[in-house]
Amino acid sequence: MRAIWTDENRLRLWLQIEQLAIEALVKEGVVPAADLEKIRAGCAAWAADLPGLVARQRELEKTLNHDVIAFTTAVAEKINDPASRWFHYGLTSSDVIDTAFAVQMVRSADLLLADLRQLLPVIARRAREHKFTPCIGRSHGIHAEPTTFGLKLALMHDEFRRAQERLERTRAVVAVGKLSGAVGTGAHLPPRVEAYVCRKLGLRPAPIATQVVQRDLHAEFQTTLALVGASIERWAVEFRHLQRTEVLEAEEPFARGQKGSSAMPHKRNPITWERLTGLARVLRGNALAALENVALWHERDISHSSVERIIFPDSCTLLDYMLGLLTRLMDGLAVYPENMKKNLRLSLGLWHSQTVLLALIKKGLTREAAYALVQRNAMKTWEAKHAGRDDADFLEMLRADPEVARHFAPGELERLCSLDFHFRQVNARFKKLGL
Amino acid sequence: MRAIWTDENRLRLWLQIEQLAIEALVKEGVVPAADLEKIRAGCAAWAADLPGLVARQRELEKTLNHDVIAFTTAVAEKINDPASRWFHYGLTSSDVIDTAFAVQMVRSADLLLADLRQLLPVIARRAREHKFTPCIGRSHGIHAEPTTFGLKLALMHDEFRRAQERLERTRAVVAVGKLSGAVGTGAHLPPRVEAYVCRKLGLRPAPIATQVVQRDLHAEFQTTLALVGASIERWAVEFRHLQRTEVLEAEEPFARGQKGSSAMPHKRNPITWERLTGLARVLRGNALAALENVALWHERDISHSSVERIIFPDSCTLLDYMLGLLTRLMDGLAVYPENMKKNLRLSLGLWHSQTVLLALIKKGLTREAAYALVQRNAMKTWEAKHAGRDDADFLEMLRADPEVARHFAPGELERLCSLDFHFRQVNARFKKLGL
Amino acid sequence: MRAIWTDENRLRLWLQIEQLAIEALVKEGVVPAADLEKIRAGCAAWAADLPGLVARQRELEKTLNHDVIAFTTAVAEKINDPASRWFHYGLTSSDVIDTAFAVQMVRSADLLLADLRQLLPVIARRAREHKFTPCIGRSHGIHAEPTTFGLKLALMHDEFRRAQERLERTRAVVAVGKLSGAVGTGAHLPPRVEAYVCRKLGLRPAPIATQVVQRDLHAEFQTTLALVGASIERWAVEFRHLQRTEVLEAEEPFARGQKGSSAMPHKRNPITWERLTGLARVLRGNALAALENVALWHERDISHSSVERIIFPDSCTLLDYMLGLLTRLMDGLAVYPENMKKNLRLSLGLWHSQTVLLALIKKGLTREAAYALVQRNAMKTWEAKHAGRDDADFLEMLRADPEVARHFAPGELERLCSLDFHFRQVNARFKKLGL
Amino acid sequence: MRAIWTDENRLRLWLQIEQLAIEALVKEGVVPAADLEKIRAGCAAWAADLPGLVARQRELEKTLNHDVIAFTTAVAEKINDPASRWFHYGLTSSDVIDTAFAVQMVRSADLLLADLRQLLPVIARRAREHKFTPCIGRSHGIHAEPTTFGLKLALMHDEFRRAQERLERTRAVVAVGKLSGAVGTGAHLPPRVEAYVCRKLGLRPAPIATQVVQRDLHAEFQTTLALVGASIERWAVEFRHLQRTEVLEAEEPFARGQKGSSAMPHKRNPITWERLTGLARVLRGNALAALENVALWHERDISHSSVERIIFPDSCTLLDYMLGLLTRLMDGLAVYPENMKKNLRLSLGLWHSQTVLLALIKKGLTREAAYALVQRNAMKTWEAKHAGRDDADFLEMLRADPEVARHFAPGELERLCSLDFHFRQVNARFKKLGL
Repeated sequence: MRAIWTDENRLRLWLQIEQLAIEALVKEGVVPAADLEKIRAGCAAWAADLPGLVARQRELEKTLNHDVIAFTTAVAEKINDPASRWFHYGLTSSDVIDTAFAVQMVRSADLLLADLRQLLPVIARRAREHKFTPCIGRSHGIHAEPTTFGLKLALMHDEFRRAQERLERTRAVVAVGKLSGAVGTGAHLPPRVEAYVCRKLGLRPAPIATQVVQRDLHAEFQTTLALVGASIERWAVEFRHLQRTEVLEAEEPFARGQKGSSAMPHKRNPITWERLTGLARVLRGNALAALENVALWHERDISHSSVERIIFPDSCTLLDYMLGLLTRLMDGLAVYPENMKKNLRLSLGLWHSQTVLLALIKKGLTREAAYALVQRNAMKTWEAKHAGRDDADFLEMLRADPEVARHFAPGELERLCSLDFHFRQVNARFKKLGL
Repeated sequence: MRAIWTDENRLRLWLQIEQLAIEALVKEGVVPAADLEKIRAGCAAWAADLPGLVARQRELEKTLNHDVIAFTTAVAEKINDPASRWFHYGLTSSDVIDTAFAVQMVRSADLLLADLRQLLPVIARRAREHKFTPCIGRSHGIHAEPTTFGLKLALMHDEFRRAQERLERTRAVVAVGKLSGAVGTGAHLPPRVEAYVCRKLGLRPAPIATQVVQRDLHAEFQTTLALVGASIERWAVEFRHLQRTEVLEAEEPFARGQKGSSAMPHKRNPITWERLTGLARVLRGNALAALENVALWHERDISHSSVERIIFPDSCTLLDYMLGLLTRLMDGLAVYPENMKKNLRLSLGLWHSQTVLLALIKKGLTREAAYALVQRNAMKTWEAKHAGRDDADFLEMLRADPEVARHFAPGELERLCSLDFHFRQVNARFKKLGL
Repeated sequence: MRAIWTDENRLRLWLQIEQLAIEALVKEGVVPAADLEKIRAGCAAWAADLPGLVARQRELEKTLNHDVIAFTTAVAEKINDPASRWFHYGLTSSDVIDTAFAVQMVRSADLLLADLRQLLPVIARRAREHKFTPCIGRSHGIHAEPTTFGLKLALMHDEFRRAQERLERTRAVVAVGKLSGAVGTGAHLPPRVEAYVCRKLGLRPAPIATQVVQRDLHAEFQTTLALVGASIERWAVEFRHLQRTEVLEAEEPFARGQKGSSAMPHKRNPITWERLTGLARVLRGNALAALENVALWHERDISHSSVERIIFPDSCTLLDYMLGLLTRLMDGLAVYPENMKKNLRLSLGLWHSQTVLLALIKKGLTREAAYALVQRNAMKTWEAKHAGRDDADFLEMLRADPEVARHFAPGELERLCSLDFHFRQVNARFKKLGL
Repeated sequence: MRAIWTDENRLRLWLQIEQLAIEALVKEGVVPAADLEKIRAGCAAWAADLPGLVARQRELEKTLNHDVIAFTTAVAEKINDPASRWFHYGLTSSDVIDTAFAVQMVRSADLLLADLRQLLPVIARRAREHKFTPCIGRSHGIHAEPTTFGLKLALMHDEFRRAQERLERTRAVVAVGKLSGAVGTGAHLPPRVEAYVCRKLGLRPAPIATQVVQRDLHAEFQTTLALVGASIERWAVEFRHLQRTEVLEAEEPFARGQKGSSAMPHKRNPITWERLTGLARVLRGNALAALENVALWHERDISHSSVERIIFPDSCTLLDYMLGLLTRLMDGLAVYPENMKKNLRLSLGLWHSQTVLLALIKKGLTREAAYALVQRNAMKTWEAKHAGRDDADFLEMLRADPEVARHFAPGELERLCSLDFHFRQVNARFKKLGL
């Protein structure tokens, strides 16, 4: 990812775009084919020495104070022939810059999509592995009803499938080049030149542009990165919770060397998850700056440029790094089903109350009558716990309550108040999700 | 738009969702058809008196401290029959809340799309009207090359066509309901119930959910609104510039009563454009809050709820209002072609320099030689102006310079240095854009 | 707080400012004292019927399309005398609007400071109450070293003392009025008028202004609200953690009616803390919009106004509401020292490892040797736990290790490995903090 | 500024803090003085070879996976004596990291304040230079009343004086160190050690802390940078407007080489102002991330760290760079009083309407009568212009209207309708501002 956003790669793309434009001008009959060959030779020489080109451009920029003119001058020097007059012919700096920028965004999106193609099967594998590993579902941080750890991960898989769709779409949205001149009228070059260059680069020509491609596209790219970052954060927060000393249902993988090396062996900190949490904030901040870049003045002002030089390399590199970390963490995530069971026990089976309530209603009780029965046994269970009976159990209380028990056939209550009852849709859900 | 986000409409949707769920349960053989009729009657009574339902719910909420239980209680009172035990059967509050919320977002997107269907033809009409109205194109606020006011508006049209695509997509993204219980396992209701309710409401069931629909969807909705807001801001800034006293190429429409009523008749302020500029900032701030809502804890925490109660009605209502204002402003925009011409003159035709440079290169001059010729005449023109000759003209200088003139056939230079030269792609561009 | 931001109160302030300006003009000898009396009578009539004034202003605004002119017209009608010619004499609309706005901000800051004066003693009381209630300190959500719940609350107290300082400062920063005309030159009114009006309102005159007071002041106000919101969020997150089923060291207070009413008595959700968490996001989004308001064009554009009409009432009302909730939550917070003790036990005293390490170093061991001794006993303790001995204890292991034990006098190790050792600075810290 | 945020400087500060802590421990009688000398020697050796220390730390970090332990190990190697056991004695990593971080923030604030001490006199000089250079004041981009260019710059001066106050305050706010251990209890080190180290570094000890200094301080630092950035943006936007082709009242300074080198001599783009505009957006985005950093979990999580590593060096370096650019731009700003005069003329003196209105009221006319007189002459002037009389003049119209003229003594109207009338407070204002 870093390679995409280097000065070397930018100049490499500029060389490519300039050459493609001249190829198109040869087809148009404007530039003689022989001149193209001379230009190609010069470009090839620089392409083989990109650091040299960067150095020469920087040197020239000091006096010229213009990055594209410094570049074209450096290339002209290398061509060293009157043929160089066709180099950059009819182009505006932004034709080259913005078209190259689009290629950089597309390549970045490709890498991020490749990251997701690595990540998704890892999540899918872990989800299948824990398809029926019971754990408590929590709302507000408080125990609610049982679920499986596999369902949690299936949900995560679904979220990153959405991330994939978002990145695919934003890749399509930003794959837009332009070679239409200083204010977008396209007066100096036939539209066929623009079409040819864009096609060769895998871009669409902007249907219409100013000096630059409109910045709502770039803002959409950045808000997409921020959205993917927010999804990563959502799961980083999940796993930080699960690693808490009191919960300890999962841990981020520890390197062999780290393990046992400490005087505090309980202190395995979810620092990588925390890092992911933090970096999502940076992506959000950058998205915001991109949204402010949209309202350029008239046919362009250059206020967006200083912002983009910072936020595009940063956000792309960060998200690539984050997705890589996430894949590694999910791959090696230590999962503790025993602790999940232990935690499930903490609520004494009270998470069956809704099941029993519905069963009683179905048997004809009014909601109020059913509720009263469920509630009194729930309270009894809870009080038993507070009286020190940590093994108090809601199901036992229900069985012991004749007014409840008489509604159920033998074994019926046990079937209802089982984890299997809660997991009966798991297979169907996994199937639907293609997991 | 306000009507979508009222308490009345929310409870109306809740009634509808609850009834649909019971209809599905009748099909499932869980609920007797006769009970459905009784429930329908109760719901219909409240549906005919939504303010009454809101009032009763609020009253009950004071003691119950739970909005959905207050609602179900109010409905049960109205049903006033044991059949009411099936009301809300197997549902979790969020099943109702989040599914209704999805309907509200979809309806809001529909309204915003309707706004755009009003706006786009207005922009298109104004673009066609000024297809060949010449004006200067500006980069950095400085004159660059000529364009037409129609091209400007064609660009605007293209931007709001993208806004349309974004809203269509986000509408599809958020059209997701869920009736899968407290932690999303779907243990208490057959998935067919969820499928039935969603289908009837024009939603898809979430492939998987927790207690709630995942908040990356809602964040995407809000970033889309912020993106559309940023596009509005971009054009508001454009027209504020064009209305400046020194530029005055366009003015926002003034009501008849306003005109002439002032002691400062030159003081027609672009206050509506300014209002649009400001409101885009509010949309951005709200999008940010939505992005922070994504990382809920485990199977849900409710921190998103207080945020959403503020930002969804606000942002939807604001954007609807903004698009309405924008349509009105574009419809009545006062355009001053004479001032555009006058402003064009300010640069003395120096915007032909690139045209002449390219022509000389094409005629075989080196870039350096061509540049020298263009430059010396440009400088001469500029100095003439500074010497007080406001009618100095670049073309005249070129014609008067034999070293330039000898390269051109009679009339050739005039043809090149004409607005027509700059506008030769306008027809093709409009065609391509379907304008 | 809502009352500060109503239309009624705004117009009340406008009346007051206009009257004060005329009083000053009487002193300047511009306005006859008799006319002042007539104006006062008109103003008093409206002041006694502010809803009537709002209604009349709105009616007039429909045709006049200007809020201040509608207001001055309404007042002139009421004065109904040639004396009304002095009403609004020499003023620009923004002189009145921005000066009134400053008063509203100052009053809001006063209310928020009053909220903090309620909050701080409540936190202080709870801190003192739990000064020596032991609980585990956690970094990364993982047990670190013991602390006391009182220290936690002392830290919280210190944070809201900083909030207080911030609000006091921002109150001073925004207490700025201006009556210096359309572009701030002050040509139409003597500066003594501005000085008089501001003094009477408890404001400073802006040293210099444009048509409006510069918006960096208002942005500072909003970033301060966002900072206070972030501090509230920080503590809301803390208490949400402490209320988790597995942790349960504290709970937000439950209303009497709520208690026991549920079929899931374990399900006491920290929904108020969650609400506070969410609302902090809204404050951040609004602060952002305020920061974008700073860059107004020239001597003012009105883009800030639509933003401010939304974010100032909203953020002030929200923060006031949040501080009120926070005080209530802290006042009634249920604290469970027994659970704190139980959680402390989970780490088997391993949090003494640093203490023992330092003691051994002090006794002359190299860091490496000391570390080896500590580590082997830590590992032994940890392994014992994993072998099922939940009562494994680090201190016992140390005592049983002769190579450790020989370095310590009898009782010495026990003194070190005690909670008292960790709490020895508590008294001093509380004293320093004035608690 | 970059030097403050290098790895070298961070490790230099760590060395310093560790040594100071040992000095204090010598005073406490814990560490023998001889050991201090050995430690000093080791530290001095690394201090003389900071790049070497960075390299060694990085190498060790690869296996140790902890930056501070890698650092202490590297130093212990260099001390190479049992005395090294006192190195880092009783400290937690964050004691060193956060205290060093505070020093970095304080030094950065110092540099930014130094930047402002460069900037303010430059603005003051230019303000004095143009104290009475007339230009039009604009609201909504539309001509309002005259002002002077000096007053504009005096306003700018006042804004950056506020920036100075903000930075001074934030410098004081963040000048906070902590050496109070893993959860802030201060159990392992006497508070005198913390006090000594902080005093030597020019910091206050945090009255209370967790493992880290609370992050509302760092968020306040970042919101301050964003506020200063917003002020820079406000003025960048001003000068971009003034450089527009149609306005051209000021231009950013051009390097000698750039001048006249172009084929489009009118094309002097305000690219530096545009860069400043853009960079303010980046500062805002970073401030947002800092605000999200406040809500750390319990006694700390490390999510803030990855964010801070990016945003603190970036924002400090950017703002330093921006203030430097701003000083250069203000120093060399090209100002065109002739164009200001020309632009003033565009409004035909209609900006006297308020003056005349007030004068007529003062002479006893009702507001309505006065307004009618002013308005009819304003309209006449405006219509004359539209009829092609660009030299139409409001004052002349007034003089030619006997119903107006009869109210004024000879010369009275001329005195009122003069620029001097508008500028009569300029001297007082400058004096008040100390300019």
